[in-house]
Amino acid sequence: MIPVEGLPEVREGDDVAAQIAAVAELQDRDVVVVAHKVVSKAEGRVVRLDEIEPSAQALYLAADEDPRRLEVILRESARIVRTRPPLVIAETRHGFVCASAGVDASNASEPDTLVLLPEDPDASAVRLRDRLRGLTGADVVVIVSDSFGRAWRHGTTDVAIGCAGLAPLLDLQGERDATGYELHATVIAVADELAGAAELVRGKLNRVPVAVIRGFEPSGEGTARELVIPPERDLFR
Amino acid sequence: MIPVEGLPEVREGDDVAAQIAAVAELQDRDVVVVAHKVVSKAEGRVVRLDEIEPSAQALYLAADEDPRRLEVILRESARIVRTRPPLVIAETRHGFVCASAGVDASNASEPDTLVLLPEDPDASAVRLRDRLRGLTGADVVVIVSDSFGRAWRHGTTDVAIGCAGLAPLLDLQGERDATGYELHATVIAVADELAGAAELVRGKLNRVPVAVIRGFEPSGEGTARELVIPPERDLFR
Repeated sequence: MIPVEGLPEVREGDDVAAQIAAVAELQDRDVVVVAHKVVSKAEGRVVRLDEIEPSAQALYLAADEDPRRLEVILRESARIVRTRPPLVIAETRHGFVCASAGVDASNASEPDTLVLLPEDPDASAVRLRDRLRGLTGADVVVIVSDSFGRAWRHGTTDVAIGCAGLAPLLDLQGERDATGYELHATVIAVADELAGAAELVRGKLNRVPVAVIRGFEPSGEGTARELVIPPERDLFR
Repeated sequence: MIPVEGLPEVREGDDVAAQIAAVAELQDRDVVVVAHKVVSKAEGRVVRLDEIEPSAQALYLAADEDPRRLEVILRESARIVRTRPPLVIAETRHGFVCASAGVDASNASEPDTLVLLPEDPDASAVRLRDRLRGLTGADVVVIVSDSFGRAWRHGTTDVAIGCAGLAPLLDLQGERDATGYELHATVIAVADELAGAAELVRGKLNRVPVAVIRGFEPSGEGTARELVIPPERDLFR
């Protein structure tokens, strides 16, 4: 587990892969976990609060907080899952259920701006992976991560919202464990565990948005969209 | 991240700490993540299906599966959260919300038995930690882990159900990030991220129930009960 230190502050249009390649010595099969904020900022997914006009719903949901922030959250939401003003749990257009539809203020390069999730975090991961291969020759896995809260449990853990070069789910269904007992329903969300592990070394306040996990044997291919439970199988809609 | 290999099959009454100490070279501040199943088995938290008489509710919830298993799940549940027979999401007496109230068949030493969660996984963690210190002199963190599903997301990740020697939540509220922006609601469930990271090296089928994480700087003290959102703050009851 290697934090990637020395990255510059990211601005719109930056080549994040080149920034990573300049400071990290990547090897084949490394898992490169990138906090979504650097991806979002490079992709221009930042909004200025002074350009936002809050709707009546945003004013209601804001309680004592800034209604413009709630307006941005509503615009990023495909569905509101729960509210307790000013707290909003929403489903994003990608299908992720998370606080504030992934809209976040902390770590924005300037005050009075909000950082959105990437338009398509899986596509972002693919682009980063391809560019890293072009720059370094290393065939790596890329995970784009965000900190999500969980139902029933305090605190956030980092999860994968974008993924390239890895099957995000390790499916052990039908395999048998050492006692010969069939493992039911054992599908491990390895991409989420990798994102969480990376968070432990990245730290929140040290501005280390990227970590490399070496020694994990990645397998398969897939997208982080596979981590979303489809509506018809979702017991918590 | 070090998988602890060479552990024997655990039986009731076994001294798990001594088994770990015999094969792992522990150091101060190591985080020792132990799959709950070895703890549960050592503590005798195993039930034989042939001693279970299913209730009418268990028969209903079982659908085409073994109603005795559902009966055990009901007995381990403080509250049923969702059902889609034979799937039951329940709150355990500890307050954890998880599939089957944590009752599991896989990896049981013998068929026709079910492994329950420890009675008090935090107390189990404290006992393991104290015993490991007595045996090795090393002041370690102990996390007792289980694989939990998540609302809205496919797959399980390992989380902490017992904890000793670590504050399971790293609270950054009120601290400021590098741009001076206050971090709201940034409470990181480090114990869960450590449990998930350990799962990546333990593997499910290789019978490696223990992993050691070295180089993480643990801080504070606390219990895994702190990871449970109290009812009055729970948006998903």
